[in-house]
Amino acid sequence: MKFVIYKDKLVESVQNVSKAVSSRTTIPILVGIKVVATDEGVIFTGSDSDISIESSVEKHENDQINVEVIQTGKIVLHARFFSEIVKKLPDKQVEIEVTDNFHTIVRSGKAEFNLIGLDAEEFPRLPEIEEGLSFQISNDLLKTIIRQTVFAVSTAESRPILTGVNWVIEKDLLTCIATDSHRLALRKAPISINPNKSFNVVIPGKSLTELNKLLDDNQEPVEVVFMENQIVFKTKNLLLFSRLLEGNYPDTSRLIPDESKTELTLQTKEFLQAIDRASLLAREGKHNIVKLSTLTNNTVEISSTSPEIGKAVEELQLERVEGEDLKISFSAKYMLDALKSLEEQELTISFTGAMRPFILHSINDQSQIQLILPIRTY
Amino acid sequence: MKFVIYKDKLVESVQNVSKAVSSRTTIPILVGIKVVATDEGVIFTGSDSDISIESSVEKHENDQINVEVIQTGKIVLHARFFSEIVKKLPDKQVEIEVTDNFHTIVRSGKAEFNLIGLDAEEFPRLPEIEEGLSFQISNDLLKTIIRQTVFAVSTAESRPILTGVNWVIEKDLLTCIATDSHRLALRKAPISINPNKSFNVVIPGKSLTELNKLLDDNQEPVEVVFMENQIVFKTKNLLLFSRLLEGNYPDTSRLIPDESKTELTLQTKEFLQAIDRASLLAREGKHNIVKLSTLTNNTVEISSTSPEIGKAVEELQLERVEGEDLKISFSAKYMLDALKSLEEQELTISFTGAMRPFILHSINDQSQIQLILPIRTY
Repeated sequence: MKFVIYKDKLVESVQNVSKAVSSRTTIPILVGIKVVATDEGVIFTGSDSDISIESSVEKHENDQINVEVIQTGKIVLHARFFSEIVKKLPDKQVEIEVTDNFHTIVRSGKAEFNLIGLDAEEFPRLPEIEEGLSFQISNDLLKTIIRQTVFAVSTAESRPILTGVNWVIEKDLLTCIATDSHRLALRKAPISINPNKSFNVVIPGKSLTELNKLLDDNQEPVEVVFMENQIVFKTKNLLLFSRLLEGNYPDTSRLIPDESKTELTLQTKEFLQAIDRASLLAREGKHNIVKLSTLTNNTVEISSTSPEIGKAVEELQLERVEGEDLKISFSAKYMLDALKSLEEQELTISFTGAMRPFILHSINDQSQIQLILPIRTY
Repeated sequence: MKFVIYKDKLVESVQNVSKAVSSRTTIPILVGIKVVATDEGVIFTGSDSDISIESSVEKHENDQINVEVIQTGKIVLHARFFSEIVKKLPDKQVEIEVTDNFHTIVRSGKAEFNLIGLDAEEFPRLPEIEEGLSFQISNDLLKTIIRQTVFAVSTAESRPILTGVNWVIEKDLLTCIATDSHRLALRKAPISINPNKSFNVVIPGKSLTELNKLLDDNQEPVEVVFMENQIVFKTKNLLLFSRLLEGNYPDTSRLIPDESKTELTLQTKEFLQAIDRASLLAREGKHNIVKLSTLTNNTVEISSTSPEIGKAVEELQLERVEGEDLKISFSAKYMLDALKSLEEQELTISFTGAMRPFILHSINDQSQIQLILPIRTY
């Protein structure tokens, strides 16, 4: 194998696939990045067996030469060292050559690295991507959907299925749900897919978090492909394979209340800052509890108490307070997470009593719901 | 105690004095910041008993009112909570009032925090600053001196005296020396002090690191005051007290060679980058060893080897190579630290054989010397 590649392209690809590489792998070859040079260009792959990322550098791109493959071939190079080395190479061009016994020479300017490579035949093969069972979505929207749901997955391993996000596709509608059983995030988005196909999968939260880091903020399309036990996200030069979680995701539809007894309409940012201040003292307590009480004149009081430190209290003028008086306690962290995920300047919180789950939603747009369970204190 | 203060001034002072507060203190009151309101303004103090920082907000500054003291008094408030709270207050003005039993109310806009304060009488008193035994130095120069020496102090507790920087003042010359017995940093600066006075103190590295963070990058003067067991750094609104290390600092003057057998003159940045690349593989080994060998035509070879990973080798064109041929090994980390501390574009390295300490110095300016002990490998 021998090729000459632009350093920028090399660094970008190696950094992208490194995101899938774990230093704590039980499969020795997975400490490495697979490099495959073909007549079409060079493909880099990193994997921790749950997630695999493949990044390709095509020979030509918009009349510009990215890479010149002198001899095809493949090798596996230690991910950590390889990625640190390529970042610090002195010249804008890099030559990579495999000689005998998987020995690999990385040359750039007057610097030369002789690396001990590993046999690429030992690297696990990624499954072939089947065509047909897929839909397209823009980078932007996919990133927003991830951001608005993934924070609510469970971090406890006691119910593994809850560490993933449930993606349900039915009749051109994608519904994404995450819950750790104390709160729930739900986001819907219309998509275009073969209307006879429906899917119900659970994608590990970690995979979606990595995908979010990998995608650019633009409107380019991402192809999402459903496969046996796997989901694949495919952009122009990137592929992310993630295994799916096995098991049935709980039915959460009955959790979401469809009536309300008290409704608040408020400025998201002002409310967020007030909760943030109250949470400074709440953080000491085990549950990070903040209290909210309706007052007169469209005003609420937000308060928190820590026996050792003191008490915080703040009155906040809202846009609208309607319905029954309410005193309710909840986790400041869950409230802050939910508020940060909402993009609207104004939002509505609908309560059905101090002991029932309440929901945050935008006034005009019903595509997103954040649900939080209160904490009993009164 | 009751005063109204501008939030910006409050946040700045509290952040400054928080740098001295440790969460792992054995003296309970030192988790707090002392706040003292007098007729002249408000003084904030934080301390971990090794370092104490005092920041004062004067009543008026350039015809602008910073603080209005309604009632003088003092209190101690929990440093971590107090500093987090002040940063997030909603209004640009803040009122702080102590009521009964050290209860303290922090008000800003519609937010109100009731904090449980501590008795300021229990807070250790800082020593009175004696006049006379002091000199002035600019912020800039003091920061540079710290940056060029403090990295070389020992982190091992086996010889506590080496965890400090030795400051010697003799005949209007300040000499600062730090060594961990594998390398040494020396920086001299002319100062103006009573010529009959000489000092020899050892300042904890940690105190100088904190001082460096505290000082602004400007040419304002800092007054350095020598006291019994203490040194004080004094700017317009800040005071940093540090205890001094007890014991005799070793005499290092004979370590520094005054002759040389091989001299290299080189571009600092180019050389630094080449060492940095070689160190990528060296890092795996216990001693982080990089080798340097002179070649012909003003060229040196920089190389490193890791049995598991591979080998890095690079030829570097220097400005000048003079004297005997040389093969020498040294710690890449020590070389990088030394190179980063030198501000000159070009520098000279003087060797007196592969087994003797070598020095890095600027071509024109002898005020700074970095010395490194080689490692035996050949």
